Amino acid sequence: MAETMNGLKRTHYCGEFGMKDVGSEVVACGWVQRQRDLGQLIFIDLRDRTGVVQLAFDEAAPRDIFEKAFTARAEFVLAARGVVRERTSKNPELPTGDVEIEVKELRVLAKAETPPFEIVENSNVKEDTRLKYRYLDLRRPDMQQRMIARHRIVKSARDYFDHHGFLEIETPNLIKSTPEGARDYLVPSRVFPGKFFALPQSPQQFKQLLMLSGFDRYVQFARCFRDEDLRADRQPEFTQIDLEMSFVDEDDVMEIGEGFLKHVFKEVLGVEVETPFQRMTWHEGMERFGSDKPDLRFGMELTDLSGALRGTAFRVFASALEKGSVRGINFKGGADRMTRKEIDKLAEWVKDYGAKGLAWTRLASTGESSSYEKFLSEEERAAVRTAMGAEPGDLLFLVASEKNSVVFASLGALRCELAARYNLIDRSKYCFLWITDFPLFEFSEEENRWVAMHHPFTAPREEDVGRLLSDPGSVCARAYDVVLNGYELGGGSIRINDAELQEKMFEALSFTPEEAQRRFGFFIDAFRYGAPPHGGMAVGLDRLVMLMTGTDNIRNVIAFPKVASSADLMSDAPAEVGGKQLEELGIAILPKE
Amino acid sequence: MAETMNGLKRTHYCGEFGMKDVGSEVVACGWVQRQRDLGQLIFIDLRDRTGVVQLAFDEAAPRDIFEKAFTARAEFVLAARGVVRERTSKNPELPTGDVEIEVKELRVLAKAETPPFEIVENSNVKEDTRLKYRYLDLRRPDMQQRMIARHRIVKSARDYFDHHGFLEIETPNLIKSTPEGARDYLVPSRVFPGKFFALPQSPQQFKQLLMLSGFDRYVQFARCFRDEDLRADRQPEFTQIDLEMSFVDEDDVMEIGEGFLKHVFKEVLGVEVETPFQRMTWHEGMERFGSDKPDLRFGMELTDLSGALRGTAFRVFASALEKGSVRGINFKGGADRMTRKEIDKLAEWVKDYGAKGLAWTRLASTGESSSYEKFLSEEERAAVRTAMGAEPGDLLFLVASEKNSVVFASLGALRCELAARYNLIDRSKYCFLWITDFPLFEFSEEENRWVAMHHPFTAPREEDVGRLLSDPGSVCARAYDVVLNGYELGGGSIRINDAELQEKMFEALSFTPEEAQRRFGFFIDAFRYGAPPHGGMAVGLDRLVMLMTGTDNIRNVIAFPKVASSADLMSDAPAEVGGKQLEELGIAILPKE
Repeated sequence: MAETMNGLKRTHYCGEFGMKDVGSEVVACGWVQRQRDLGQLIFIDLRDRTGVVQLAFDEAAPRDIFEKAFTARAEFVLAARGVVRERTSKNPELPTGDVEIEVKELRVLAKAETPPFEIVENSNVKEDTRLKYRYLDLRRPDMQQRMIARHRIVKSARDYFDHHGFLEIETPNLIKSTPEGARDYLVPSRVFPGKFFALPQSPQQFKQLLMLSGFDRYVQFARCFRDEDLRADRQPEFTQIDLEMSFVDEDDVMEIGEGFLKHVFKEVLGVEVETPFQRMTWHEGMERFGSDKPDLRFGMELTDLSGALRGTAFRVFASALEKGSVRGINFKGGADRMTRKEIDKLAEWVKDYGAKGLAWTRLASTGESSSYEKFLSEEERAAVRTAMGAEPGDLLFLVASEKNSVVFASLGALRCELAARYNLIDRSKYCFLWITDFPLFEFSEEENRWVAMHHPFTAPREEDVGRLLSDPGSVCARAYDVVLNGYELGGGSIRINDAELQEKMFEALSFTPEEAQRRFGFFIDAFRYGAPPHGGMAVGLDRLVMLMTGTDNIRNVIAFPKVASSADLMSDAPAEVGGKQLEELGIAILPKE
Repeated sequence: MAETMNGLKRTHYCGEFGMKDVGSEVVACGWVQRQRDLGQLIFIDLRDRTGVVQLAFDEAAPRDIFEKAFTARAEFVLAARGVVRERTSKNPELPTGDVEIEVKELRVLAKAETPPFEIVENSNVKEDTRLKYRYLDLRRPDMQQRMIARHRIVKSARDYFDHHGFLEIETPNLIKSTPEGARDYLVPSRVFPGKFFALPQSPQQFKQLLMLSGFDRYVQFARCFRDEDLRADRQPEFTQIDLEMSFVDEDDVMEIGEGFLKHVFKEVLGVEVETPFQRMTWHEGMERFGSDKPDLRFGMELTDLSGALRGTAFRVFASALEKGSVRGINFKGGADRMTRKEIDKLAEWVKDYGAKGLAWTRLASTGESSSYEKFLSEEERAAVRTAMGAEPGDLLFLVASEKNSVVFASLGALRCELAARYNLIDRSKYCFLWITDFPLFEFSEEENRWVAMHHPFTAPREEDVGRLLSDPGSVCARAYDVVLNGYELGGGSIRINDAELQEKMFEALSFTPEEAQRRFGFFIDAFRYGAPPHGGMAVGLDRLVMLMTGTDNIRNVIAFPKVASSADLMSDAPAEVGGKQLEELGIAILPKE
């Protein structure tokens, strides 16, 4: 059996050793990073979460120590007692490179089989393999640093909220299913067969009730669950920093949100974030960047070409202009950076966003070419170029559609894609902004009614309340999103605290009073007993950590993540369970179709 | 519609006002605690989470303000702008009682229907009603103070662990079902019909994997789930402070556990807790207190009467002594505090713990009586009295059983019951101790095999390893529980980190290698890649907060708790869900029997 710590106590972490320790007797513990056998001399790099230190063994050492060192392999777990000495040849690359430990006692606390991949930074291993052996993947220093950063971000955020009078209050994870938007995960009840709990998609209703209870300022680092078809940066369970405040308006919540981000960036990254953040209406975000989460680290703004093309005879543009628009972006100096073939590929790519095509003009040094200018009059051609500030070397992209939403989505995505591909982004920048004045409703073709863009408890702007029923499409929400470098970090709103207004809201959503009662019953009742004005927001913690640690893979900041199918490759969950377990729950598995 | 905050900003919380503010213009917000109409004068007590302040209105005020004040009712939500003035008749009972606000502007932010109970401290409302209207119950100052204390306990604990190098790492809530002891809550998978996730009973395996990954010190305030039949102090979901450390032995973990409790008691309650805590073996806890979680705030220890009764002719005692024991407790001065009828009732009560009867001797001032002395010889009588230190006025209780476990359970419970009923407990005391040297196994009559008393990854004491297979009943675990005032606050152990020893452990538990692989597969595999020595513990947060806030109802420290049936009375969960939801999950509800 393996040896034990019995009687040994670690004195230092591996990364802590330095010249100050020379001559001290010390105990270090960790994993073998590598062993080098030089005949009369053996070196072992010993690793823990703080770094690596060199253990030195020479033939003069007692036979058993030298032999143990000789047989040590990568990932063996060792405890070494010895004396720190200055190295004869120092390693300036290593923080502890001035010293080594001359080992007097060595214990092999655990042996290790050869791991399926080497435990080194940024290793090029397939992600599926990394996830299957997550416990080994997490040994890699870059993964360790991300987990440590996550801890520090969360700790520093909690300090901030505590300092500002927020109470962290835990809300339940076994709740009533009230589907709104995404699918709920369900949990069958054993005590009440045929009934189910749901896992929360967010603590929304509970945090509003806590305001109603007078807690005034609430925060929770809340686990949330959504049974959605997963995209690359989504997880079936995720963590949000969830907060709510009473007796406030938008500015109060936004000030707290800014303060929290400023504090965390300063504490964890040493980055000074300017506050207050820039604010932009939803409308402006769309017009200028084709996005409600614009990345402001680069320009390439959208140009509306309605003026330049008014009355054009070119049918594609003319029909787009009738109900929608023609807009473009100018990839400055892009003409010589893209081949014709690459442009054609982009035209295909943009179809994912609903665009029927991508019109372009290439002002290359080798000559001008265009996919659409031949259909325009000379004045129109010139007007488009002028509107877009075209200069020699530029590459213009135009999208025309009868739906503005398609124009925005296509050009917004294209803008980001070009910036990413051609390195137009200053990656040292953190560009925060608030998006405000969201529409309260969007029209659902599927349900043939107005639906809430956020949720039905979001307050409309006071000046718009009169149009709630007569012109819902024109009503703006008291909602705000915080955006960082093209990612929606979070968002929130001032909530409705007035029962009459809430009723009107349900009417606008075409709910009957009975339907509203059935779906939101006890929650609505609660509001009859004195609800203060309140509002709040939620910030996606996983995404925040992802952006702060400079990775673009959200699984890199979650210790044990799921893959896109929702499966856990390490433990092989979900899995089959025993028939007796299901019977106790009063459920059965339907036969496969 | 209700008025809004628009343009008003709160300047103080209600509880913050004092003489320092006299003459200042202020804005206060809150709920009407009560309104007193004195004709030309109206007073309103306005309440928020910090306290109450008096608003004053006199007839000279503008008509609309006076009228609003006149119609204000309990739980209306108000914002008041005004000037702080010294009261003519001060209220020394109230922290803000020196001053009042002369109101210049009053807004009714929300009206309120008459609540089902008054929002006052320690109100005598049925718990079911409180839970149905939890959002109102949480307005009561005592409930608010408990939630605030909970926040402070958690914050202070997190500060401690962060300071000591622990990383908070989140582990998943959708995991693989590996039933061990309690039932898992299951979550059907939509993507993999017929398969299920489970909600974690604890993050045990994940935290051990994190040690294997080299995180060295881990902590998590983890939500855990157990589908058990609920007792008064259990919840289907609860929170535990879960920690794990590498390269440590028992003393290291216990030192951290003590340090954390000392820190939190000092910071939150201002109570100095002495460390290190007293330690007691499991065996001593049983012998002296009949309990593995003894309440040390009072004496009344158990006396073993085997010596005094050796060779007795009294059959009941003699047969108990053959395989079990006869033990007793002395309720000092209890003889005149209990009637015969009360003693008889206790004899019934003790049957819940398996005792067939309760023998007693009452040395009352009105005369002596006994249920068993007549069956004993004079020497035996005297020996029992001497062994128990009996004096005039005492009341002796004896339990005899062929099972020591019954004797311990009965007398242990009786001891606590008498102390509680007759006020023998100094409630200002916090008596912490560690229970150590638990048996590693207990024999399951049901399964006819040895089962793990904690879990199969708990390490045996090194000196006992040789008896793992030959004499499992004699093997002690490297486990420890921390006990406070008779409650098990938490516990933990040093874990097995050696694959060979783990195999032996499974053998002792009568698992085949295949069974071990099927049940713990990937977890066992992980240990082949170098597992450091590690151990940890978990402390029940809900119970800790309960003990620190001086309530004996765990639901009083959880914002939205469940009742014993697992139901949430406020939202009426669990509930039925739509057939389409179930169909998507590939499950059906079994018809009721």
